[in-house]
Amino acid sequence: MLYTKLFGKTKKETPADEVSKSARLLIQAGYIQKEMAGVYAFLPLGKRVLDNIIQVIREEMEAIGGQEIHLGALQNPEIWETTDRWSDEGIDVWFKTQLKTGAEVGLATTHEEPLTKLVSQYVQSYRDLPVYLFQFQTKFRNELRSKSGILRTREFIMKDLYSFNTTGEALDTFYEEAQTAYFKVFNRLGLGDKTYLTFASGGPFSKYSHEFQTICDAGEDTIYVDEEKKLAVNDEVYTDQVLQDLGLEKENLKEVPAVEVGNIFKLKDKYSKPLGLTYTDSSGVEKPVIMGSYGIGPARCMGTIVEVLADKEGIVWPAEVAPFKVHIVGLGLQNAEVAEKAQKIYKQLQQEKVEVLFDDRADVSAGEKFADADLIGIPYRLVVSGKTSEKIEFKARNETEAKMLTLPEILAEIS
Amino acid sequence: MLYTKLFGKTKKETPADEVSKSARLLIQAGYIQKEMAGVYAFLPLGKRVLDNIIQVIREEMEAIGGQEIHLGALQNPEIWETTDRWSDEGIDVWFKTQLKTGAEVGLATTHEEPLTKLVSQYVQSYRDLPVYLFQFQTKFRNELRSKSGILRTREFIMKDLYSFNTTGEALDTFYEEAQTAYFKVFNRLGLGDKTYLTFASGGPFSKYSHEFQTICDAGEDTIYVDEEKKLAVNDEVYTDQVLQDLGLEKENLKEVPAVEVGNIFKLKDKYSKPLGLTYTDSSGVEKPVIMGSYGIGPARCMGTIVEVLADKEGIVWPAEVAPFKVHIVGLGLQNAEVAEKAQKIYKQLQQEKVEVLFDDRADVSAGEKFADADLIGIPYRLVVSGKTSEKIEFKARNETEAKMLTLPEILAEIS
Repeated sequence: MLYTKLFGKTKKETPADEVSKSARLLIQAGYIQKEMAGVYAFLPLGKRVLDNIIQVIREEMEAIGGQEIHLGALQNPEIWETTDRWSDEGIDVWFKTQLKTGAEVGLATTHEEPLTKLVSQYVQSYRDLPVYLFQFQTKFRNELRSKSGILRTREFIMKDLYSFNTTGEALDTFYEEAQTAYFKVFNRLGLGDKTYLTFASGGPFSKYSHEFQTICDAGEDTIYVDEEKKLAVNDEVYTDQVLQDLGLEKENLKEVPAVEVGNIFKLKDKYSKPLGLTYTDSSGVEKPVIMGSYGIGPARCMGTIVEVLADKEGIVWPAEVAPFKVHIVGLGLQNAEVAEKAQKIYKQLQQEKVEVLFDDRADVSAGEKFADADLIGIPYRLVVSGKTSEKIEFKARNETEAKMLTLPEILAEIS
Repeated sequence: MLYTKLFGKTKKETPADEVSKSARLLIQAGYIQKEMAGVYAFLPLGKRVLDNIIQVIREEMEAIGGQEIHLGALQNPEIWETTDRWSDEGIDVWFKTQLKTGAEVGLATTHEEPLTKLVSQYVQSYRDLPVYLFQFQTKFRNELRSKSGILRTREFIMKDLYSFNTTGEALDTFYEEAQTAYFKVFNRLGLGDKTYLTFASGGPFSKYSHEFQTICDAGEDTIYVDEEKKLAVNDEVYTDQVLQDLGLEKENLKEVPAVEVGNIFKLKDKYSKPLGLTYTDSSGVEKPVIMGSYGIGPARCMGTIVEVLADKEGIVWPAEVAPFKVHIVGLGLQNAEVAEKAQKIYKQLQQEKVEVLFDDRADVSAGEKFADADLIGIPYRLVVSGKTSEKIEFKARNETEAKMLTLPEILAEIS
């Protein structure tokens, strides 16, 4: 991609109305733009990052047997009344609207109810189970406040996976697999080191649920971390009894702010029972299907990556997430020979299937180009100028030293 | 994919509450399921088809310079009041809802206004143009009636591209390129032969807009087709004056029902003017940006493909759209040797990166499996049974004769 053609350039000013670091950097670097409080547009750079995060999550969900589906946002109240979640006491962030016929409908904040109903049309016998279904679908949540950029919005794509098993033991086994898959996701997103499996309130049906909390100053949550055991406890369940349950010692725990980047719940028969999702076991007995649910917000992950990995120069993307792998900075492109040289390297990298952003602006200073490259945060920077011969100046975004490398050496370095 | 593991199996009965052929077939074959009137869930098979259609459209939009973005569904009334489209007189299919603060917001039926506003933050000079932006985004339309399955729904993913040029001539040139790109899309989707560039009402700013209408019994529109000239006229502009304008003769036109699978509009300065999207030309004069908009509904295309190409046995997918390329029907799988043979062919095809659905059910008759394969409509069927030796029975979905081929011959045939 040529930078002169890219829609969504860097801005000189930090947006004044954003308090979160990630929103400020993402807007300034040209990834996102605010449409209204809690609603953001993803510009081409931002859409690429979001898609990369979605692809990482998709691969890990498919690896544990997940099949991708897509449900509607518009919701029929009837299903939600069955589980007492249509009223504000059940879910306090509904957006509700009306059909032309006058009938009330809602915008889904989550999908346990409609999916449970859907699955009941296809599952009758133990032979139809297990089933693991997931989607990347736009959720709407009528949040009272929304001022953390893309960390908490009124509308966002959520990956929600739901598991359907015959027994509690089968759910337990899958739940462990999902936990492992979640850590694979956060490792690939560059958040692994700072992300803790965190015990949180389980609600009426399980003792605990689990959150994946990433230590981060912008976090709205407070957790207590045991760094050695790689475990944490959310402050909502931070009691002596719980610590004893989990074998944690108060003196080993550190209080830190954190962002909830994922959560997983054992739902058991909470939704299958009222909604009539049952199966017949091998001896002909009808039983409720045992469920779990597993969420990750790709845009919240995107914001958290920026919060955690950015330095004072700008964003630092991990390789799997970055909008492009290589950022070519062309200097002195008014000179036709230099411009041609830079174009040639750009083309060669593209032929090698390397995703490249080429800063081909002819009227911008070297200093401004370097500052923009740091702000945008692509993993590898190449500088092509009048001085470039066989060897090209190569620098990783998260290193300070540049090296002089040939193109084959660069390809080896970044692969 | 093993058919025993696939979520969303074929059903014996046709859904009684669906009037459109495509909805009946897609539900019966396990592609979609109705959630409420005008809202459908996409099951794994249906999600794969939808994604394939989206990918075809994405490739053709990128080929003409489109950059992908993603805007919010939630809409601030203020922008739409500027263009007189917040009221029901402006757009009569709004869903409206309220923030917790009490402020009214809408769900986007289209995105001219918010995108025009967004682009105005990045475009100042003629050097920032042209810009072509597109998205695959969920639109909400409060349709009074919705009974044509996925041909007209209250919620659907739409590809909407918007063009931003300096002059009317530049818009005209891009508009032609978009037309060509649209025909490439419909050709790849298997709809090319039956899809006509159709003159329709242009509104106050252009004499005509253009629709892409696919001849189809389920269509809600009536068009008049000149088969030789590959042109059509929508009945809303079917007058002697218009025919004369377009050089069409009444006696060469055939009246047919059709589905509008795409539409393109020259918006000119209709939105840029009220919303203040201007640029400074090379002589320093401020001018409104000249716009166009270009829509395609991937799910409507999916329904239309089924309407147009299905035969009395079931769905017939074109290769680029099909959920899998090959459908292996295993017969007599109770026999371990046969099961192993079928598994081996399944694995070999997967190693060759061929997408395969393997009907590995051991307790279903040959007749039922063949009927399901025809209903599901995957392009190539392989039959593996006790009789299978080096040569495997191979049949294309749209042919009647089977052939006996070796695996390498099959790979050559389908590539």
